[in-house]
Amino acid sequence: MKITPVHTRIFKEKEDLPAFIAEHIVLVPEKTVLTVSSKLVALWKGKTVPYTGRTQKEELIRRESQAALQTPLAWLTIKDGMIMTNAGIDESNADGKLILLPPDCYACAQDLRTALRQKWNVQDLGVIITDSMILPLRAGIIGAAVAYSGFEGVKDLRGREDIFGKKLEVTLVDAADSLAAACALAMGEAAEQQPLCLAEGAPVAFVDGTNPAEIKYPPQNDLYTPLLKAVKLIK
Amino acid sequence: MKITPVHTRIFKEKEDLPAFIAEHIVLVPEKTVLTVSSKLVALWKGKTVPYTGRTQKEELIRRESQAALQTPLAWLTIKDGMIMTNAGIDESNADGKLILLPPDCYACAQDLRTALRQKWNVQDLGVIITDSMILPLRAGIIGAAVAYSGFEGVKDLRGREDIFGKKLEVTLVDAADSLAAACALAMGEAAEQQPLCLAEGAPVAFVDGTNPAEIKYPPQNDLYTPLLKAVKLIK
Repeated sequence: MKITPVHTRIFKEKEDLPAFIAEHIVLVPEKTVLTVSSKLVALWKGKTVPYTGRTQKEELIRRESQAALQTPLAWLTIKDGMIMTNAGIDESNADGKLILLPPDCYACAQDLRTALRQKWNVQDLGVIITDSMILPLRAGIIGAAVAYSGFEGVKDLRGREDIFGKKLEVTLVDAADSLAAACALAMGEAAEQQPLCLAEGAPVAFVDGTNPAEIKYPPQNDLYTPLLKAVKLIK
Repeated sequence: MKITPVHTRIFKEKEDLPAFIAEHIVLVPEKTVLTVSSKLVALWKGKTVPYTGRTQKEELIRRESQAALQTPLAWLTIKDGMIMTNAGIDESNADGKLILLPPDCYACAQDLRTALRQKWNVQDLGVIITDSMILPLRAGIIGAAVAYSGFEGVKDLRGREDIFGKKLEVTLVDAADSLAAACALAMGEAAEQQPLCLAEGAPVAFVDGTNPAEIKYPPQNDLYTPLLKAVKLIK
């Protein structure tokens, strides 16, 4: 697998994102996965507000999330069924604005994929929209897939056997977040100006439709549910 | 960044792991990060017990973890200051045994690095020992770094600026887990027999010593602490 971040000029609010991407990436081989920073997608959709102060940001965090808990570090929120810091609202590389996540990132990923398949004349193309995520008890953020399109984000190994012919204990692999983590590391967080990244040879199955539900685990079985329930983040 | 999983023969318990690795990987370029499945490290150190039943496995999970909580899916545990499923005890690819994590994975990573630097005649070499991790509300596992050696596992961006000259909000990047996630995806979970993986061109700083504390977030500030406290996983 080859992971290549792409340096770009600064993307302006409400610019044409597929055109911007095609301006910097002229062609890609079949079965490429393109990673796009959620910031670009938010700017594309004009999801910004001028920053006026802490109170405003807190109100936005509450409004943009299904559940929110204040912690010493940041707000721990559930946004679109995903654990996120501050409901994904971002101030870095935002030029004095707050950047909010678009309302339907899966539709954005699908639209990007449709436009870019045409521009690049490829059949199999994956698109991931990445944001950062904090792991429990870990210093530092890792990249996660806010949404994706064009490949199976979860590899289903149910029924597969291990090297001794025993049925596997682990049956699902979160490919979308694994790829997002690697690409986000390559893209950087500061002034690198690398909001795009290409993954070639990723071990994923390319498909036309994408089922956003596949990556969400049923809360009644989730390992973290007792924790989330204890602080009333989920009912 | 190039990520290449390595196919191997089956590793036998208490075999010489550095020799096994050098048997399959003859040489690597400078600044390579080698990922090794925690299973190989556990077998190297002879950390297996014959499986006798569910009660035994539960007792081991409690004994091997600092805190444990039973959930419908598996045990949510804290092991070596890290959230792990079932205290890292594994039955897949274990040939009827339970495979436990070695007591000091950081020392194992350091020992592997020392031996392999010599065998491969390189200065800058990173080693990651990977296991799987479950993210909150996500289907499927991702790879995480149980331990590592030879590079800065956390990139510290404090004081760096964004593209508009504003101080960064995000200041720490968890490079070790990001690399582990990508490599684990490439290695696979079933009968691929790819317990090793090479990452070339990874955007990390190679160092001689490694500070295992850098990747652990102080619980008093951790975003997840209110959750972990609510179910008494941490005090």
